Order: sequence, then C-alpha cells, then structure tokens
Amino acid sequence: MARVVQKYGGTSVGDIDRIKNVARRVVSSSNQGHEVVVVVSAMAGETDKLVRLAHQVTPNPDEREMDVLISTGEQVSIALLAIALKDMGAEAKSYLGFQIKIATDSAFGKARITGIESEKILSDLKNGRVVVVAGFQGVDESENITTLGRGGSDTTAVAVAAALKADVCEIYTDVDGVYTTDPNVCSKARKLSKISYDEMLEMASLGAKVLQIRSVEFAKKYDVPIHVRSSFNDNPGTIVCKEDREMERVVVSGVTYNKNEARIEIMRVPDVPGMAAKIFKPIADANIVVDMIIQTSSTEKGCADIAFTVPKSDFAKTLQIVKNTIKELGGKEVKSNEDIAKVSIVGVGMRSHSNVATQMFSALAKEGINIQMISSSEIKISCIVDSKYTELAVRALHDAFELDKSVISEER
Amino acid sequence: MARVVQKYGGTSVGDIDRIKNVARRVVSSSNQGHEVVVVVSAMAGETDKLVRLAHQVTPNPDEREMDVLISTGEQVSIALLAIALKDMGAEAKSYLGFQIKIATDSAFGKARITGIESEKILSDLKNGRVVVVAGFQGVDESENITTLGRGGSDTTAVAVAAALKADVCEIYTDVDGVYTTDPNVCSKARKLSKISYDEMLEMASLGAKVLQIRSVEFAKKYDVPIHVRSSFNDNPGTIVCKEDREMERVVVSGVTYNKNEARIEIMRVPDVPGMAAKIFKPIADANIVVDMIIQTSSTEKGCADIAFTVPKSDFAKTLQIVKNTIKELGGKEVKSNEDIAKVSIVGVGMRSHSNVATQMFSALAKEGINIQMISSSEIKISCIVDSKYTELAVRALHDAFELDKSVISEER
Repeated sequence: MARVVQKYGGTSVGDIDRIKNVARRVVSSSNQGHEVVVVVSAMAGETDKLVRLAHQVTPNPDEREMDVLISTGEQVSIALLAIALKDMGAEAKSYLGFQIKIATDSAFGKARITGIESEKILSDLKNGRVVVVAGFQGVDESENITTLGRGGSDTTAVAVAAALKADVCEIYTDVDGVYTTDPNVCSKARKLSKISYDEMLEMASLGAKVLQIRSVEFAKKYDVPIHVRSSFNDNPGTIVCKEDREMERVVVSGVTYNKNEARIEIMRVPDVPGMAAKIFKPIADANIVVDMIIQTSSTEKGCADIAFTVPKSDFAKTLQIVKNTIKELGGKEVKSNEDIAKVSIVGVGMRSHSNVATQMFSALAKEGINIQMISSSEIKISCIVDSKYTELAVRALHDAFELDKSVISEER
Repeated sequence: MARVVQKYGGTSVGDIDRIKNVARRVVSSSNQGHEVVVVVSAMAGETDKLVRLAHQVTPNPDEREMDVLISTGEQVSIALLAIALKDMGAEAKSYLGFQIKIATDSAFGKARITGIESEKILSDLKNGRVVVVAGFQGVDESENITTLGRGGSDTTAVAVAAALKADVCEIYTDVDGVYTTDPNVCSKARKLSKISYDEMLEMASLGAKVLQIRSVEFAKKYDVPIHVRSSFNDNPGTIVCKEDREMERVVVSGVTYNKNEARIEIMRVPDVPGMAAKIFKPIADANIVVDMIIQTSSTEKGCADIAFTVPKSDFAKTLQIVKNTIKELGGKEVKSNEDIAKVSIVGVGMRSHSNVATQMFSALAKEGINIQMISSSEIKISCIVDSKYTELAVRALHDAFELDKSVISEER
C-alpha cells in the first residue's frame, strides 16, 4: 500500500468522457489499497477561454481579479471529478486552495507555494476517502486567491505530495514520459526510464515542455519522486528522482532545442568596468529575461563585442532599448538575428567526463553547422546555430552520443 | 451620501457589454458620493450550463460537489465586473463567500445565511473602494462551499445590506418593478411604487417571480428597504418596505396567478381523528410541499372529502402515494385534475376591510367562472379555477378592485 498523489492535466480531463476515464483510473488505484490524492487542472481550453473573456473587458485586466477569474477552471474540474468518483461508489471529496490552505505569496498570476495544511487530507485518507485537490491555485495571507502560473498544477501536485510525505507523485499527461529528444524531430528518440532532478530542470527550461520547472525544483527540495506518464495507457513513464550512480555513467541524457530566442550583438563597445551592467540594467528593468550572454574582445582595440539572446516575443522591445543605451555609451553598431536556434545537450555524467564539449562541436562541424554562440554549465552545453539547421543538429547530436541506446537498466 | 447595496441579476451581466454597462452604473453611484457594494449573479445561462455538465456525468450528482461546481458562475461575474470597474478607474475589490465569511448552514443547494462578517467590506468602503460580492454562495462551519438556491443572490444582497446597515438594497433586474399583475396577461397592469414586505411575500410565493421569497423574509426581519428596478433604464422601480398607513388604505395591491399546481381529491375518507395526518405524512416524507388543503363533509355519513394541491412536477408521485395510503385507510375514490390555476388577490388593507372575499367571488361569478377551492389568509384570498379561465379571471379581478388606479402617492 502506497500513498500516491496523481496529477491529471487539462487534456486528460478535457471532456466528460475523459473525466470518467480519470475517475476509473483513480478508483482502480484506490481499490488496489493505495491512498490516493488527485490534483487536476482546468479542462483543456478553459483557462484560455476565461483569459479571452477578461481581455474583452480590457487589454490590461487587474491581476488580483484575473486570479479570481481563472481559478474557476480548476474548481469546475474538481467538482466534476468528485461527482464522477462518488457516482462510481468511491468516497470522494474535493478541496479548493483556501480549504486546505495552500498558502502562497501574493504574486498574482505567478505565486509561489509557501505551505499546505495536511490535516484535513490526512484525516480523509484515514477514513478511506479519495481526495481531489484543485491545482494551480492558492491563497495568500489575506485570503486573496492566487494562481501559480501556467503548468502550476504540477507544482500543486508535488507540493501536496511533499506535505503528505507521499511515496510518489504521478504526473499524468498526454505524452508517455520524458524522451531523449523531441520524437517529432528525431525518430530514434527513446523514452528515459529515469532522469535526475537537475537534468529535468535543464531539459524543462531548455524547451522540453513536460513539467513546470518550479514543480521539479520543489520535488528536488523535498525529495519527492515524480513519475511522468500517460493518462491514456498503463505503460510506465519516466521517473524523475535524486541522482544515483547509474545516472552518472550516462554522459548525455538528452538533446533539446529552442527556436524561441533571438540574438542581439553590440559591436565595439568601450571595454571599461561597469559597461555590461549599463547595457543590461534597462533590459532587466523592462522585465525581459536575457538568456545567453557572451563578451569577446572586439577587432577595435579597447573595445568589446557583446552578444546575448532574449525571447523572440521581447526582441523588438529589447532592440529599441539597446539602441537607446548605446547612443549614450558610444557603442558603434548593433546586429541582430531572429533566425537562430539553441541546441543543447544535458547530462549529469558531464561532470566527470571531459571531452564532451569537443564531441558536441565535432558532431556539428561534421554536418557543416556553424556555431554562433556557446554557453555551458556543469551539466549542459548549449550552442546557438542557424535555425534552419535545428533538426539536423538535434539528430546529429542524438547519434553522436548514442542516445538511442539505454545505459540505465530499464526496470523501475 | 448613502450606503447602497446594488444587486444585478444574470440578465444584467449576461455579456461583456452588459457587465460594462453595470460597471458604469456603479461608478456613477460611487461618483455621486455613495458607498456602493455590488452583488452579482452568474452570467445568464451559466448556472444551467454547469448543471448540464454535471448531469452528463450522472443524473444524481453529489450535492456538496454540485455547490462547488455551480458557485463558479458568480466567481466569474465578480472577477469580470471588478476588472471592468478598475479599468474605469474605480478602486474595486471582489469577494467570494469564504472571504467575507457568508456563513450558512450545510443544506447544500438550498443553504440559509446565518451571518456575514462586515469588517473587510466596511474597511474597503472607508477607503473609497467599491466592493463586489459573489451572490448565491456561502460557506458552512467546515468551510464547505454552499449555495442558496435559485434566486439566492437576492438573499445575499439583502443579507449584506442588513450586515452593513445599508440605507437601501437595490435589486436591478430585467423588469421595471413589481406590477399589480402580470402585464402580459392584463394590459392595465400598473407598476406599484411601494409594497409591504408581507404583500411581497404573498406576491412572490404566489408566482410573481421578481424576488426570491427568502430575501424578502430577510429584509422584513432586518427592516432593509428593497428597491426593485430595471438595470436598463433609470426609472424608479418599486420599494418593498415596512407597512405604513398609506398602504393600509389600499384593499388589494395585486392579483397573481399560478398554473403550476395540480389538484388531488380523496372522496369519502372515514372522518376520524388523525386521518389527515395519516394522509399527509407520507407526502411530506417524500419532500413534496402541499399548498392548499380543504376538508369538507362528504355526502356519505361519517366521512369527509379532502382536496389539496401540489406542484405539477410532484403530481404523479403524489398520486401514487395517495393511492397507496387510501388502500390502507379505506378511502373510497381519488379524483385529480391538472388543468387548474390558482388566482389570488393580495393586500394588507384586507385586514381592515370586510367584504373583500365577496367582491372577489362576485367578480369571478360575473364572468361565469366556477370556483373549485378557496383558501385565505389575513392578507390574501386564493381561488382554484379551471386553467382556461386564468387570464379572464386575472383581468376581471384587476378591474373589480380598480388596480389600474393608484391610491398611494407616487413619490418615493
């Protein structure tokens, strides 16, 4: 008998038949003797529909009231699921954020969970009940409703699992698990049986959209094993858990790519202390997140070239800011490029294996792919390349690091 | 400067344009220096849509979870209205039932309000805010969400007005006010400028669907004047308030009718003590509300005939129960009739005027309308007639008591 938190995403509860399907899965787990807590998202499309309603009122809706509005999506889901569960004879009870005090800060639209009262849930579980919890929502100190940002239900599930000291947090979604790379790009992509929190963090933030990043941070902090799996079949998915020895033997676990960035390059800026700060402060002030930053000596003496990437959606705004800044600072020229992609390899094994970077660069060179920028961390190396090479680069790297072959034993 | 609670029904917030229209009305009241609290219903059709969703899951959805589900309708409304208000520059803040502790009993789907914490609202009003409150919902002692039944937002508005000691509770709806009778039936129907709580209670329960009955009971208990008026124009509507001398001069204030009842008659029941109780207990046990009950001596000696009316929706069920009962008790025959209507006259003036009943019976007789049953209270007389005479009866009574002529002065 285990204590299990199951999270079902919007697609899995997308209509009444799917909600009944989820209810059957939950009842089956419960009948196996497990204690089951279910966290659900809004039915697919509902949150967007609510956002559109608000935007019909005004392009800039109040943030507190937006959270009141969009949190109704999950409220509808938990009620319908609890109704379905009770109809199947399960003792079920739904809870909203305020009812089990999913406490958050007051950052409306992107709140962070600070605590959960587990008493009510534990008492329900003890009494044989299935507990259904609304994902995505919480309350701040003044009982204002808050929401956790897109994908926030993942974080709710992990936080509930942590509060209940659950054995596992199962995230049911419309994919089978976490793959070595995007199967749409590389037919040899293989489902990973296990991946470490740190790798998953890099994979998620680099564009493999399976789990909300914050939920993985939370899981890492409280050591909650996450099992990512499909709600449409019974296949085992991918376990995201603490790093172990077996994982370290794998040099590269996955290849990811991201086409949503653009590059800006400032040529021949006077190379004096504080220059970078002066360039990036106004960008940060505009709430734009800069990803890669690279500074090199310029061809002009006493000057530097600074290149960086920003999300494509912020590109025009950033370019304007930069042009204003360099007028003051005496930069000579601004170049930009929207046709780029970031291709990355991720793996905890990199820490103990030298030569991984060289292998990556060689693999790209062999295909005639020019590298425009490079950045690396302990467990990740990213290269900016011309966007037309994205798929080619992904496949070349997947082959070079033999990701189609599993090193980790496949049993759970 | 007054403290005003305004309630807008589902039609008044039926789409984004109408919500903006409500926001403009609220801002205008606020700009006149009034303290304004707004109570809103779900957008027209939303509650029905949610109920249909639940019925797609099962014909008998769990009651607690139904309230979780259908309370989302009002949550959407308050958020959108608060967004519209803030967009127009008003400081606005929305509250759900749990946030201002609209305490109720635990009768899901038909809960009764037992208290409201007024502190947050009063502090907001003091700080110049417009407060937007979700109608129809509350929380019980265990923080379960409850709903107040159809029309419950009226009761929320009156309860909030009572808690805040507001000067008036304005109920905005899609009609201009309370009429002497249904204008669709009688073209001479006249809008009443003023009506007493007791008359309104009789009018509402007799079928004039302007206000939820319970809201009027609440208003009477806490002496909150209600102003029923249209949200689509600025005309004064009808004030529902404490009885005054002027009202007493009016013998009959309104004529109402109800076609949703059916009649059941049990012939020749042995006339012994406890007989009526034996007949009506199984009906009450089935949660069926009996309206009129009349007992007469039967043509057979030592026997009585008992006739009563029930809602048409409960007719078949009641008939079955009655047939079972009289088998045991030895009743001789059961007659029933679904083609009936109840026509009533209401007026506090009746208390001090004799002869009102006779006038009513004569007016009906003059049109050749046979009376099947009669019941009366202090301020109301009801007659059951053949349903085909409903409209004729209403017009005849409206004329007989000269309801097209106002006796009360029209100023507020």
